[in-house]
This record gives sequence, structure tokens and C-alpha cells, in this order.
Amino acid sequence: MLTLHQMQMSGNCYKVRLLARQLGIPLALKEYPLMAGETRKPDFLARNPNGRVPLLEFGDGRFLPESNAILWYLSEGTPLQPADRWDRAQALSWMFFEQYSHEPYVAVRRFLLAYAPDEVREARRAQLPELRAKGDAALGVMETHLSHKDWFAGARYSIADIALYAYTHWAGEGGFDLSAFPALSRWLARVAAESGHIPLSERW
Amino acid sequence: MLTLHQMQMSGNCYKVRLLARQLGIPLALKEYPLMAGETRKPDFLARNPNGRVPLLEFGDGRFLPESNAILWYLSEGTPLQPADRWDRAQALSWMFFEQYSHEPYVAVRRFLLAYAPDEVREARRAQLPELRAKGDAALGVMETHLSHKDWFAGARYSIADIALYAYTHWAGEGGFDLSAFPALSRWLARVAAESGHIPLSERW
Repeated sequence: MLTLHQMQMSGNCYKVRLLARQLGIPLALKEYPLMAGETRKPDFLARNPNGRVPLLEFGDGRFLPESNAILWYLSEGTPLQPADRWDRAQALSWMFFEQYSHEPYVAVRRFLLAYAPDEVREARRAQLPELRAKGDAALGVMETHLSHKDWFAGARYSIADIALYAYTHWAGEGGFDLSAFPALSRWLARVAAESGHIPLSERW
Repeated sequence: MLTLHQMQMSGNCYKVRLLARQLGIPLALKEYPLMAGETRKPDFLARNPNGRVPLLEFGDGRFLPESNAILWYLSEGTPLQPADRWDRAQALSWMFFEQYSHEPYVAVRRFLLAYAPDEVREARRAQLPELRAKGDAALGVMETHLSHKDWFAGARYSIADIALYAYTHWAGEGGFDLSAFPALSRWLARVAAESGHIPLSERW
């Protein structure tokens, strides 16, 4: 069985749990406490030199880091990865957007406001306005796309939607006001209505 | 013909020029001046709502943003994209590492030290030590991998190497000392020896 090294509050880890659930792939979970530094210790670094979760363990000595690479690997040949070459390019383009232009603002502001120890939040308080502005800009880029498309890559729900859903649906914890993004809010509801979605009670 | 909307000094744009050269794909270049704000104007935003280069234009109304998604699209079915599923996952894992853990430090410090207007550099001077530490950490992750592997994904040169080469080979401009990373330095030389590599005189 595959083992997901993860933190339950992490959106990057949630992506993998959601895809695995929807593909019917059993996952064992190994939980790491937030802020304990376990992923920076030698045992973990021997498995992922970048010291981060999620990390997918295959049980035969192989490990795969990076949430969106894990989504790609697990979804190859399934309906959740677009079959068309152009749609695949769109999926990857949005997944790189998510990691470069969205997660560093939307997820980091959520971490600081809702999960960080008080001293970390206070030390980084001056960053909150810029994180809000850049996070709102990313949500605005999504809103522009969703004002004329139902999904991010091709004509159906895919791993691109899973990648963007994770931290977007938790953006309220980061002080973002999703009511300002109506097309995005309708897309969040469409994603939550997909078969096999993880219910709220299981997300944290 | 494909048109690459680009800035010549950008490593993300260099990736696309290098891959296209090595695949024999003709590219028209449309150059944008640094700091002029042209990519944030309505004409450009209609093509890429995220307001960034590189942006690949197909001539039939389609545009593809995100450097690593462009690499993936152009290399499908060629020897520069791994054919094996696990090797493809490795390639994507390193390409997401590049955008999340490497570019925001190695490329941003290079921009501040070598290209930013004086007032931008001065306003962000306090960030330089953290950018150096996190950039060195990313280079260290690469060094660990390259101490027992020749390439980043599978047994040969691929788009994963192109993605990581771009800003790594310019890291000296960001004040990074590559002599501290001997396996990485040998890999840089291997990449530069690949057939069709873009010579230094054409890079800026």
C-alpha cells in the first residue's frame, strides 16, 4: 500500500488524499505535527532532501515529493487527467500557477493567521497586506477564467481543479473574502459536488 | 510559427528558447522591456490574465503561460520528455521544486542584485540574507541528488535539466557561490555540452 507522509491541515496534502479517494486508491497516512521540525531531521531528509510533505512512499524504496507531481503520477491514464494534449498543457499551466502565484500567498496567509504560533505570526505581521493583495490577485485570475469556463483544463473536472481547490476552499481562514469572486464560488460548489469528494468533517 | 512573448534576461524564458532550439522548433520572439509594466496592461492581460512572460502564442488564438508547462507541451513525444511513467513523475517533481523552492530565491536574488532599479534593490535589501540562505538550500538539494545521479529524471538529459539549468547557471549573478557545489558544477558542464545548447553570446 502507498503511504502518504503528510500534515492533515496542509492543502498540498489534502490534494493527494482527495485524488486518491476519487480514484479508489488506498492510502496509509503518516502524520507529522506542525512546527515540530520532524521533516528537517536526517531520517526524513534521506527520503526527501527538500524536507517537505506531502511525500508519497511506494513501499519498494521509492519516494515522490511535490503535491502536483504526485497528482500527475497517480492520475495518468484515468479520467481525472485530461487525455488531450492541449488540455494536459492547460492542466499543468494551472498547476504551476497554483504553486507559484497562489499557494505562496493564499496558503501562507492562512498558515500565519490560523495555524502559526503567536511569535511567528507577530514576526511576520508586516507581510500580511502584501500576502492579501497577491492572494487576491491570484483569486482574480481564477475568477477571470471561471467567468467563461466551468473547469480549469478541458470540459470536465480534473487534477487541475483538485490542485486549485485545496487552498482556495480554505482561503477564508487566511482572511480572504470569497464572496468577492462569484464565479469562483460557484466552481467551489461544483468541485464539492463531484462524486467521492471528501466531506468537511474529514478534512482537518 | 510560434511566438514567444519574453524578456531576454529571464531564465524562465531562456528555458523555452533552449528547448525549442534543441527540438528544431522555430520561434518568433516578442521582447518586453524589464520594469516597463507592459505585461500588466489590458492588451497583454487579455492573453495571459496572470500578466507574466514567458507566454507562448500559437497563432490560432491560443496562448500558453507558465514556462514549465510550455516545456512539457513542446517536448511531448520527443526524447527530451521521459517516456517512462516514473521518470515523467521525477521530471515534474523537479520542475515543481524549481518553481517553488529554487526560482523564488535564486532568480529573485539575481534580479535584485543584477537587474533591478536601484530604488527597488534598496527597498528590498533586508531580504537578501534570507534569499541567499533559501537559495543555497535549494542548490544543496540539487547537489545531494547530483552526487549520485547524472541527470534529474531518468538516465538522460531532459526538460527537468533544462528547467533547473536556467537560473542555476546564472546563480553567480545573484551572489551565489557555485564552487561550493561540485557535483552541481559538473552537471552544469554536462548540460552545456549537450547538442544544440545556446552559446553564452546568445543568452542575454
